[in-house]
Amino acid sequence: MTVYVFGHANPDTDTITSAIVMSNFERELGSTDTIACRLGNINKETKYVLDYLKIDEPILIEDIADGSEVILVDHNNPAESIKNLNKCNILKVVDHHRVMLNTSYPLFYRAEILGSTQTVLYKLYKEYGIKINKTIATLMIAGIVSDTLLLKSPTTTEEDIKIIEELSEIAQIDYREFGLEMLNKGTDLSGLSVEELLYVDAKKINFRDVKAITNQINTTQINKVMKMKNDFEEGIDIIIEDEKIDLYLLLITDIIKGNSQVIVKGKRSDLFEKSFNVKLKDNTAFIEGLLSRKKQVTPIMTQNA
Amino acid sequence: MTVYVFGHANPDTDTITSAIVMSNFERELGSTDTIACRLGNINKETKYVLDYLKIDEPILIEDIADGSEVILVDHNNPAESIKNLNKCNILKVVDHHRVMLNTSYPLFYRAEILGSTQTVLYKLYKEYGIKINKTIATLMIAGIVSDTLLLKSPTTTEEDIKIIEELSEIAQIDYREFGLEMLNKGTDLSGLSVEELLYVDAKKINFRDVKAITNQINTTQINKVMKMKNDFEEGIDIIIEDEKIDLYLLLITDIIKGNSQVIVKGKRSDLFEKSFNVKLKDNTAFIEGLLSRKKQVTPIMTQNA
Repeated sequence: MTVYVFGHANPDTDTITSAIVMSNFERELGSTDTIACRLGNINKETKYVLDYLKIDEPILIEDIADGSEVILVDHNNPAESIKNLNKCNILKVVDHHRVMLNTSYPLFYRAEILGSTQTVLYKLYKEYGIKINKTIATLMIAGIVSDTLLLKSPTTTEEDIKIIEELSEIAQIDYREFGLEMLNKGTDLSGLSVEELLYVDAKKINFRDVKAITNQINTTQINKVMKMKNDFEEGIDIIIEDEKIDLYLLLITDIIKGNSQVIVKGKRSDLFEKSFNVKLKDNTAFIEGLLSRKKQVTPIMTQNA
Repeated sequence: MTVYVFGHANPDTDTITSAIVMSNFERELGSTDTIACRLGNINKETKYVLDYLKIDEPILIEDIADGSEVILVDHNNPAESIKNLNKCNILKVVDHHRVMLNTSYPLFYRAEILGSTQTVLYKLYKEYGIKINKTIATLMIAGIVSDTLLLKSPTTTEEDIKIIEELSEIAQIDYREFGLEMLNKGTDLSGLSVEELLYVDAKKINFRDVKAITNQINTTQINKVMKMKNDFEEGIDIIIEDEKIDLYLLLITDIIKGNSQVIVKGKRSDLFEKSFNVKLKDNTAFIEGLLSRKKQVTPIMTQNA
């Protein structure tokens, strides 16, 4: 029976590379029919990594049969997963997010408070004595760099730093140089429509009863991205209506300086103001030091909801 | 800040010994203020184990302050945990049950499909290179024996068997002899009231929308226990009303032959009949080969609910 390995919808580099690395892990453990998959299009940053390594994209899946065996990486929240997840047989989860899953059966669940899923996968490879070759090491580096914004995000741990240095020796690359190149490719927004930008890294999330979408655009020039503010706002209004949500947060994050300009819309915008103790002006506010949705947005918004 | 380590309410041997073993693990990792706790009275089987090792019971806790730091072992379901779990800061989970937890923050989560939490803890000790002394090894054996009914339950895996054999060498005990003695102490029901028996290993569980309590009494003589059937039924009726549940299942399990007589009451008794394809007679049915709630009751009841 085929085992489908995939990360979250709106895949980022950690999700895509983790699906490939986990699928390889399963094959090393003896599985003969495990395939790496993805739930959406890859972004420019991820494309750069796969092109660099000359490896194929994971297979795009939109529907899988009820009862399929799946392995989740880099997520566990059914709202960010394949639609019929509750009808699938989840064999394993390898993740670094909060727990949002309920199952009716025990499973292998491995999560740690680390900067990326790849850091968890590195530890699994070590634990099971599975060799990390140059390609796997580079994929792991890419996941860590992407999720920690080159070790700058507050989600970065000492283990992430130690492990990315070890991986650089295996991969024989300078992770800083490779990482900066990779992140820069990710900030290239050319050719993306307003709608695509508004879904580029969008995640559906509930802050208790408040139904929200958060999205993050990485850039080195916040001002340039903010020139599209009016278009963003129009697009966000449509999304709020279509998705029936109470709140949409767009973080436009300067990955060099480590700050974010946030555009906030929806009838529960007050939750953002309360959580960050700011007053929105024209639906936006600049938040110094804001880099991480997981560490800096979700816990505080949930607490205040 | 004190870190409280505890297993589920209505503690069994795996839960109590896992709290002690996990607390020791944390101290070995450098924590200076971690304490093993329990959420209820220990049973006779567990008492035998602690007396054998001449170690104290974990500390009984009923209330802890909001914001307390906790580590959960052998459970993750808030319904089986301390009342204000959602106001506590859960640092880690080490478990072998289905996932029932939702958090607003990432955490260390380690679960595997193994016969006992102790088997998972053994692997953690190995992974982190922490020495397993005679006492820890005996506690681990006790947890495995209790949860797998001396390796007879369908939840038993090859890893449980391999690991209990390794632990026996460290502990220098015959796990079969020790295990049988231990289980026999657990089947001694003398001195327990009907009400105590009806809560002896009770777990609150929802099979989708069906609110239920399942309970298991281990014995070597089903007929003898069934002499109390009328008293059980009266007690169950009171519990159903007090706890506002739709279903109460009492498994009276012959741990030698591996069968269960089940007493079923509540307005959703039909769910049991449908799930096991039996007709209840006088609110009871004999189910051949039924040993495990986790593997044989919960998944099938959830599926049919």
